[in-house]
Amino acid sequence: MSDNKIIENENIKSIAGTFSRAPFQLNALLESDAELIQFDSENILAMTYDAIVEEIEEGLYTDNYQIGWMAVTTSVSDLAAVGAKVLGLLLDLKIPKEFRNTDLSELQRGINDACKFYGCHILGGDTNANKTLQIGSTAIGFCKNKLMRTGMQTSDILYTSGKMGLGSSYAYSRFMGDAKIEYLPKAKIKEGQLLSKFASSCIDTSDGLFPAICQLMELNNLGINLTTPLNDILHKTCLKISEEKQLPNWIFMCGPHGEYELLFTIPSDKIKKFETEAKRINWNPTKIGDVDNKSKLFTNVDGFSINIFDTTNLYNKNNIKSPQQYMVELLKLDKDLRL
Amino acid sequence: MSDNKIIENENIKSIAGTFSRAPFQLNALLESDAELIQFDSENILAMTYDAIVEEIEEGLYTDNYQIGWMAVTTSVSDLAAVGAKVLGLLLDLKIPKEFRNTDLSELQRGINDACKFYGCHILGGDTNANKTLQIGSTAIGFCKNKLMRTGMQTSDILYTSGKMGLGSSYAYSRFMGDAKIEYLPKAKIKEGQLLSKFASSCIDTSDGLFPAICQLMELNNLGINLTTPLNDILHKTCLKISEEKQLPNWIFMCGPHGEYELLFTIPSDKIKKFETEAKRINWNPTKIGDVDNKSKLFTNVDGFSINIFDTTNLYNKNNIKSPQQYMVELLKLDKDLRL
Repeated sequence: MSDNKIIENENIKSIAGTFSRAPFQLNALLESDAELIQFDSENILAMTYDAIVEEIEEGLYTDNYQIGWMAVTTSVSDLAAVGAKVLGLLLDLKIPKEFRNTDLSELQRGINDACKFYGCHILGGDTNANKTLQIGSTAIGFCKNKLMRTGMQTSDILYTSGKMGLGSSYAYSRFMGDAKIEYLPKAKIKEGQLLSKFASSCIDTSDGLFPAICQLMELNNLGINLTTPLNDILHKTCLKISEEKQLPNWIFMCGPHGEYELLFTIPSDKIKKFETEAKRINWNPTKIGDVDNKSKLFTNVDGFSINIFDTTNLYNKNNIKSPQQYMVELLKLDKDLRL
Repeated sequence: MSDNKIIENENIKSIAGTFSRAPFQLNALLESDAELIQFDSENILAMTYDAIVEEIEEGLYTDNYQIGWMAVTTSVSDLAAVGAKVLGLLLDLKIPKEFRNTDLSELQRGINDACKFYGCHILGGDTNANKTLQIGSTAIGFCKNKLMRTGMQTSDILYTSGKMGLGSSYAYSRFMGDAKIEYLPKAKIKEGQLLSKFASSCIDTSDGLFPAICQLMELNNLGINLTTPLNDILHKTCLKISEEKQLPNWIFMCGPHGEYELLFTIPSDKIKKFETEAKRINWNPTKIGDVDNKSKLFTNVDGFSINIFDTTNLYNKNNIKSPQQYMVELLKLDKDLRL
């Protein structure tokens, strides 16, 4: 039934696979969160473009301050995952004619606050009239070391930068729940810069934890063991919802709306030094598992046996049309697992 | 009646003016076609994002090969205007669900051919589902000298990189005419690189010649004399349409759809050396006028007296809803001039 391939990756290959690659580009297609360009003997430029389209269209983000914040965070998080220092951003603003001045002010305030938080600036951009609000950004930065999704080795230790599942909790609260959850995630810039000295691979969890694990397994053709119980990885907001609404905890890991944490691997001989340095910047990453040589095989200590390629592909395979339909499919899957 | 301000610039200031500028950015808002970042003591990074939205929506571009070509050309032309070498591009693809595989192939072929022509590569990007096709691109490059829209001085000589008005001719043929005109403009990359050694200011004519002249006048607070008759500046396709359809030649200079040539100024003591070097790359730029110290005043040898700030603002001021309405307004203006 499952062939352990990420369908979305196949879609991306069919669109971008026809373009020839630049000889000075360090990453192949999909191999890193941002594009890495060897600029000179010392410096690697890191670039990424990301747009917020479906999130606004489907009503996941409705607050203009939040939309501004997210427009900056989404591309800055890609730079965090390659350990880059941020130089700045270009904005791609598509604004409806009926957008009011107060709406624009809120959007600008969100953008400005996020830039201030990350210590970066808007360098320029382009504005177009559009039927609906859409906003994208290009982020540019630079780094000295090459940190990518590929590179992890058997027996490396797997970490997350923080607790997981807030992105799904937020989506649940918007579409299914009654509680109001604040969602202004912070890209892990200083953590990523530290990781560029220690990590063997890194990806952000903007699409959720399981899809991020799938990417690491697919791109490195290795397996991952989750050795920490899911409840110890989940954000307290998830745990609360999961308990109150009697929902299986694992569905909060499936994305597609994640939380801009980092998922990364550290070679075992660097663990001690890494954890010491992390403490120094008041950061306490969560050890969640390790890498093994079983190709693309995911195991966990929670006793449920689930193919996370199937959950990652659920959206594309089942032609999901609404968040409600998605939830029904996840719960169906959970029922099957318990039979 | 006219206050000699470009309305579009005021719009841009109201959107982007609230963002604080990066200390290492060399250009202020509007001062250059691409954003210029002092990267190290030798290198300036040049970046720009540009999207094709209205052109597709209004039916100006309908051919997918052309749309792909234009998506690359529009941002590469901004790098040409700052004299940068192109490193590569990020694509922002918004594709309708009903977009066929053959449509996608044509789009990819246009993108690939343009990249091959400019000697650059697609580095990455983002794809989203959208109601209509929209495509944008971020181009990144680098340069050693700072070439901007600002910098021209009284008695500098004004040039265009080639004949003008093909963009307007193309728009005319799409919306008003019967003739079919091919439009696959080529960004002036190697010309721009030469200009970075000689020019005191430079802008591309993607919005048309008169709007480009207005920008130079407004940003430098100087006047420009067109000393060459318009007929000697106009592309032969313009001349043909203008003659056959009995249309005033100047309306082909008003934009807003231009042709991706460069408009630039050379200090008079550098003219000889510049023209020699231009010949060496088989380039024959057109001398069209000079710069004078009369603030934002435009004069020309054709005997018509027109305020090109008014023509540049026509679209915004008169709430233009269609190309046909625009043509009516231009012809009205022409009638007034001849009274």
